Amino acid sequence: MTTQTAGTDLLGRDFLSLADLSPDQLRCLLDRAAQLKEWQAEGQPHPLLSGLSLAMLFEKASLRTRTTFMVGMSQLGGFAVDLMNEHTQIGVRESIPDIARNLERWVDALMARVYAHSTLEELAAWADIPVINGLSDLTHPCQALADLLTVREHLGNLAGRRLAYVGDGFNVCNSLLFGGALTGMNVRVASPVGYEPDDDILERAQEIAEDGGGSIEIGNDPAAAVEGAEVVYTDAWVSMGLEDEAAQRREVFASYRVDDDMMSVAAPNAVFLHCLPAHRGEEVTDAVLDGPQSVVFDQAENRLHTQKALLVATMRGDAAFDELGA
Amino acid sequence: MTTQTAGTDLLGRDFLSLADLSPDQLRCLLDRAAQLKEWQAEGQPHPLLSGLSLAMLFEKASLRTRTTFMVGMSQLGGFAVDLMNEHTQIGVRESIPDIARNLERWVDALMARVYAHSTLEELAAWADIPVINGLSDLTHPCQALADLLTVREHLGNLAGRRLAYVGDGFNVCNSLLFGGALTGMNVRVASPVGYEPDDDILERAQEIAEDGGGSIEIGNDPAAAVEGAEVVYTDAWVSMGLEDEAAQRREVFASYRVDDDMMSVAAPNAVFLHCLPAHRGEEVTDAVLDGPQSVVFDQAENRLHTQKALLVATMRGDAAFDELGA
Amino acid sequence: MTTQTAGTDLLGRDFLSLADLSPDQLRCLLDRAAQLKEWQAEGQPHPLLSGLSLAMLFEKASLRTRTTFMVGMSQLGGFAVDLMNEHTQIGVRESIPDIARNLERWVDALMARVYAHSTLEELAAWADIPVINGLSDLTHPCQALADLLTVREHLGNLAGRRLAYVGDGFNVCNSLLFGGALTGMNVRVASPVGYEPDDDILERAQEIAEDGGGSIEIGNDPAAAVEGAEVVYTDAWVSMGLEDEAAQRREVFASYRVDDDMMSVAAPNAVFLHCLPAHRGEEVTDAVLDGPQSVVFDQAENRLHTQKALLVATMRGDAAFDELGA
Repeated sequence: MTTQTAGTDLLGRDFLSLADLSPDQLRCLLDRAAQLKEWQAEGQPHPLLSGLSLAMLFEKASLRTRTTFMVGMSQLGGFAVDLMNEHTQIGVRESIPDIARNLERWVDALMARVYAHSTLEELAAWADIPVINGLSDLTHPCQALADLLTVREHLGNLAGRRLAYVGDGFNVCNSLLFGGALTGMNVRVASPVGYEPDDDILERAQEIAEDGGGSIEIGNDPAAAVEGAEVVYTDAWVSMGLEDEAAQRREVFASYRVDDDMMSVAAPNAVFLHCLPAHRGEEVTDAVLDGPQSVVFDQAENRLHTQKALLVATMRGDAAFDELGA
Repeated sequence: MTTQTAGTDLLGRDFLSLADLSPDQLRCLLDRAAQLKEWQAEGQPHPLLSGLSLAMLFEKASLRTRTTFMVGMSQLGGFAVDLMNEHTQIGVRESIPDIARNLERWVDALMARVYAHSTLEELAAWADIPVINGLSDLTHPCQALADLLTVREHLGNLAGRRLAYVGDGFNVCNSLLFGGALTGMNVRVASPVGYEPDDDILERAQEIAEDGGGSIEIGNDPAAAVEGAEVVYTDAWVSMGLEDEAAQRREVFASYRVDDDMMSVAAPNAVFLHCLPAHRGEEVTDAVLDGPQSVVFDQAENRLHTQKALLVATMRGDAAFDELGA
Repeated sequence: MTTQTAGTDLLGRDFLSLADLSPDQLRCLLDRAAQLKEWQAEGQPHPLLSGLSLAMLFEKASLRTRTTFMVGMSQLGGFAVDLMNEHTQIGVRESIPDIARNLERWVDALMARVYAHSTLEELAAWADIPVINGLSDLTHPCQALADLLTVREHLGNLAGRRLAYVGDGFNVCNSLLFGGALTGMNVRVASPVGYEPDDDILERAQEIAEDGGGSIEIGNDPAAAVEGAEVVYTDAWVSMGLEDEAAQRREVFASYRVDDDMMSVAAPNAVFLHCLPAHRGEEVTDAVLDGPQSVVFDQAENRLHTQKALLVATMRGDAAFDELGA
């Protein structure tokens, strides 16, 4: 483990965006995720959240987020309860502040996947327990944690690495910008005109990148972004909640498909990442997704380990790791 | 802990109505809930239901009941499984007696939230495990347990206290009548004409009250009920399952809204209770719900602790507490 | 416990059909189920799957399968997560191979209830963890395990016993054929013309029966099948997914109802089995289902114990039992 410096403890903190973390805090999370992954592989029990509970709220479908949070809590000796939004009907059957003020009485943290990022902010404002962003229309910071750990595992380090994101400048892209900036990566985004990341996100990511020695560039040319990249990343063209725009988006994004031609422009050792689920033949071809450069299932696995680190960090803080001598 | 007298053990007992309990049994449950709440606050593990399972069946939506039973079982070292009524389709895919005779083979208790109270009675008749009422069209005894603990915490004791219930003389009101009667409170209900508690409920509550030194009065004047009350309680005007009557009910109940004017008639130290979810601006104003007299989130929290006491009492009995030296 | 011979270890094996087991492997599973049942009855903890997780996927409704797998994992010290198919949307939101390659990274086994048996085969082909058949359109091997344990408990042994299956030659019947064949029973099936078991299933079952000293006969006369039978078994006329054929099936199967007359032809000590849910008055009368020969709830209970044995066998292998000195 990296020796902890003062200021890395996330005890009691919300986790709505990677931009809220310092580079040290992020590096520490990744280190601890790697430690938890090792313990899990060795079969060493690590009940750091024994007796603690996580509530989970899903306004949208989930395979990876739901399963990894539930299994993760279980492996940590704790318990996760899915609030089942068809029961909770957040904001309809009961106001968001009221739901927050109920939940904080029973559980030790709340993870929510929401349409509007403002729902997370409202939950966090009212609940005196850590609120974790399990995907919003703005960011997907849990995904970025897994992405960074995966890249670090495959390339050995992050600072100075070239990452190309090709496609929709939406929530996954936004968190990747913050993650790349915090770890000193050089990130190039290629999105169709009108589908670039928001200016606010971009500005904040560029500030962080300047502080940390990385860089952020935005453009509309996939080949230019991918050229020499050591990491090539894409995401669905039609994210959940945007189904109405499907036909139009398929047309606009047609030249942003990651295929063998596009991968051939990247660095020879480049890895391919995707947050999944993949829409095979749309944003990525079978050949790339199933090919030797694809690390998408390592990436999916790392959702588990990074979120476990996050849960321990926010619910028990640095002290929890000391118990196991880590 | 209060010393247990013979006859308080609820081992193997169903819990369909507070009226089935003796005053001693009810007091003992509240004492144990207070003990469990203390242990939980201190972080003292209390795995009294280790290895035991609870099945939960919901015909209607739930936030508080579902979450507190799941988290409660987990904190007690046991396990709760939501049968998911869209799968179980109680009474449609399989008869109620058959479902009961299946479940008793696998789990140690059953909690059900149902439309018809008779469903609970049928489950209890056929299942040789404790059946717990998680809300029916007749009563809501788990809610009343939390209500009583909350009032006791805030006012110090229950006997002789004046409680006013303003609104629909329905399930929550019914259980409150029994709870108030069993603990020697003086309960006044104000409901619109035609929305008073059932005569059968009322008669039984008055019998209990007479035995215990409390009183029950039913009327149609909110101000008269609330005058001098130390507890003011209301519930939704349109309970789940009554949505068809919404417009009519909003008209009938308009003068039963708990607002600052109504609270000003109560005792100066009065607390405001609501079983939640609240329909802000309907049965209660924001000012009252969010004001200094409101203890609704303490009340919600106490769902957890009182139900944990109930689960231990019915699944393991008095003996379980002796193990932890309580 | 039966001493284990080499070749009975099911560690890491899929469980899609009983036909994949040897007679020894099947007998060993039943022995261990009996052992687990004894431990459970005695309250002896048996956390053989501590720290391990099972994912569960249901394309169709379930009471028994879902509850027993969840409770079973809990009793074994492990954890089960329902993937909630309305979230997972297997094959729609994400391809079956991709789902398999995600899940194998997080959990230690997968149980799936599917419409098409090919879905199970595809999951098993792609996931490097045990895949367990929780019911498909071809077989229901977990049900057959419970059936066999129940018959063995009531009749003392299986080899040479006469079992009559009356009704639809569908998934439950198919697994019963394999189970009967593997244990040396004499199985007679009576189905309406056109509703007999598939030829492939039948051929394989007869091969197995010949090896093991049992027999399989298929016909269309219920009375002939039941005559002298020590076990009478039926199932729903309209299985899940076949609702469109309901009216036609009720006509075709009318003379296949198991009633007192039919039971009177069986052996005097005959037991009646049904996989449940029962459609009272359709495939079986109340008098038979609730009568003294019915062991349907013992059978339902044994879903729990046999599946626990299966989970331990596939996830931890024979070694797990040695730890508890069994």
